[in-house]
Amino acid sequence: MRRYLVATTAAACVLGGPLAASELRDEALEYFQPLPSTLMAPADNTVTPEKIALGKALFFDPRMSASGVFSCNSCHNLATGGDDNLETSIGHGWQKGPRNSPTVFNAVFNIAQFWDGRAEDLKAQAKGPVQAAVEMANTPENVVATLISMPQYVAWFEGAFPGESAPVTFDNFARAIEAYEVTLTTPAPFDAFLNGNEEALDEQQKAGLQLFMDAGCVACHSGINVGGHDYYPFGLIEKPGADILPEGDIGRFAVTETADDEYVFRAAPLRNIAETAPYFHSGRVWGLHEAVQIMSESQLGAEMASGDVELIVAFLGSLTGAIPEVVLPALPAETGTTPKPTAQVMAE
Amino acid sequence: MRRYLVATTAAACVLGGPLAASELRDEALEYFQPLPSTLMAPADNTVTPEKIALGKALFFDPRMSASGVFSCNSCHNLATGGDDNLETSIGHGWQKGPRNSPTVFNAVFNIAQFWDGRAEDLKAQAKGPVQAAVEMANTPENVVATLISMPQYVAWFEGAFPGESAPVTFDNFARAIEAYEVTLTTPAPFDAFLNGNEEALDEQQKAGLQLFMDAGCVACHSGINVGGHDYYPFGLIEKPGADILPEGDIGRFAVTETADDEYVFRAAPLRNIAETAPYFHSGRVWGLHEAVQIMSESQLGAEMASGDVELIVAFLGSLTGAIPEVVLPALPAETGTTPKPTAQVMAE
Repeated sequence: MRRYLVATTAAACVLGGPLAASELRDEALEYFQPLPSTLMAPADNTVTPEKIALGKALFFDPRMSASGVFSCNSCHNLATGGDDNLETSIGHGWQKGPRNSPTVFNAVFNIAQFWDGRAEDLKAQAKGPVQAAVEMANTPENVVATLISMPQYVAWFEGAFPGESAPVTFDNFARAIEAYEVTLTTPAPFDAFLNGNEEALDEQQKAGLQLFMDAGCVACHSGINVGGHDYYPFGLIEKPGADILPEGDIGRFAVTETADDEYVFRAAPLRNIAETAPYFHSGRVWGLHEAVQIMSESQLGAEMASGDVELIVAFLGSLTGAIPEVVLPALPAETGTTPKPTAQVMAE
Repeated sequence: MRRYLVATTAAACVLGGPLAASELRDEALEYFQPLPSTLMAPADNTVTPEKIALGKALFFDPRMSASGVFSCNSCHNLATGGDDNLETSIGHGWQKGPRNSPTVFNAVFNIAQFWDGRAEDLKAQAKGPVQAAVEMANTPENVVATLISMPQYVAWFEGAFPGESAPVTFDNFARAIEAYEVTLTTPAPFDAFLNGNEEALDEQQKAGLQLFMDAGCVACHSGINVGGHDYYPFGLIEKPGADILPEGDIGRFAVTETADDEYVFRAAPLRNIAETAPYFHSGRVWGLHEAVQIMSESQLGAEMASGDVELIVAFLGSLTGAIPEVVLPALPAETGTTPKPTAQVMAE
């Protein structure tokens, strides 16, 4: 076990007194960017208020699943950090999903979607779970038939996609969900700090930020989302046990079929990480301190002193942002032509 | 089959011209009451803003279920009429519940809760699904342990139950949910009509209201909730088929063990009925027209002319109310002492 204690310099620095915040901020801005002050403009998808409102309705509508039981919000629950607090999600027929549900908050800033980046953007992602047999188990045809059966949805699609002769399509379903998800950003104290408010982080968080950069965490976790911007091997220096890194899930290799991508995953975006246990694609680690230590050992090849873990965790706490106010949509009622949910058939 | 056409007089009245709205209103007020203009005060449970806010958090928190998958809102979805649009709910381990999930909207005005009235009020009801093996499958001890593990919840309970030395109890959990549910009322055009706005119903709805009273529907469906206020045999005149009235579910008999209560159920409250298909305790009927016809035959012993069914359905549409604005709560994150969800164990 080649482990050593990292970052004693940074720790000593803390003992020596408050850090110079402006220097710290300058250094941080070399690695990180604050959330932008306006909505992102996704490719090939103009974001309008009508499209956002439609996307919100779709996001919360359990009738988008074949069973009628699950909505997007079931596994990306906006009340609980944008994820579901489970190791891996429970889906259609109580099947267990293969990987931990990532938070939908700030997902627009990730380089691509899913742990292996197999969806290039949020509208591509939105088409995945709705069709996955272990998640919502639906088909594009049944989604469209469900939507067309409700006049209110047809009117909403017409408003969101003006000028289209047949706007109720699976592609537009995905575009509307993307438009809504673009709004799901969570400004955090760390953004205020990056934007110039040097009091936004306390001394412990500042020391944690310094350590996060000095120890090398920043090599994989940088950018707007403090991660989520690129792909790295899990177990760069030392592979964690199969309980945490299951051998059967080889990560991005399944997407690229490139040997170098075995056990490569998109670096976890760390915004709201304190709200989104359990951790890693396997969801097998419930404590943030433990997760930081595992990262230190597997990615940096060094055990981290417990005081330093505390500092990192304190810094990560500054990434917990303000959740946008979400008013629950009033969804239209089914009509006689709405496809029936399959939940009952499954359960009998 | 002893069927005859009912209420031809009322139908003729429609053809004869507009009804005298003020006379209609006077007659309606003999049977119905509008929603009150202030919150109900449930027994033994002072409703305060703090208690309402806590109850809302609990209502939306899936960690109140053993699996971590289901919240109260899963089966009483405030975005879809306060119910789940399924024949019967899907619960823990994908088990099928025994009866159709009733809407939580306006439930405070029902004489008692559940289809058989086995819970005397909303706080008694709130303790049921959370413990039912086929629903949330939790225990009071585990609910309390979950809540106590999160300091924010403890603070919320302290604020909602001031002066109590140990406020985080299963009883107070239920009281808070009741306080929140008291706020879930949906003022409808019918209320405006009863309150004196005679233009709130259109002519078809007024004719439907007149017919609803003349045909005898009002014998079981009256009061604030147009039902929900008392118990009646399903199949008073003619038992519907076992597909709609399953023989194994003898209704209130299971509560009272009185022979007269075989196949007796609480009359369905009809507010928002157009939004809450499928119908009856079995949830086997998806169309409102069909449900009205079944009621006419089983309870009134007469087939209803299709035009009259249309009028009744039009009147029932005037019971669709305005859904209260619900801002999704931001729920606290788990801590190291929070009991783990059992979903994973179940699925493996």
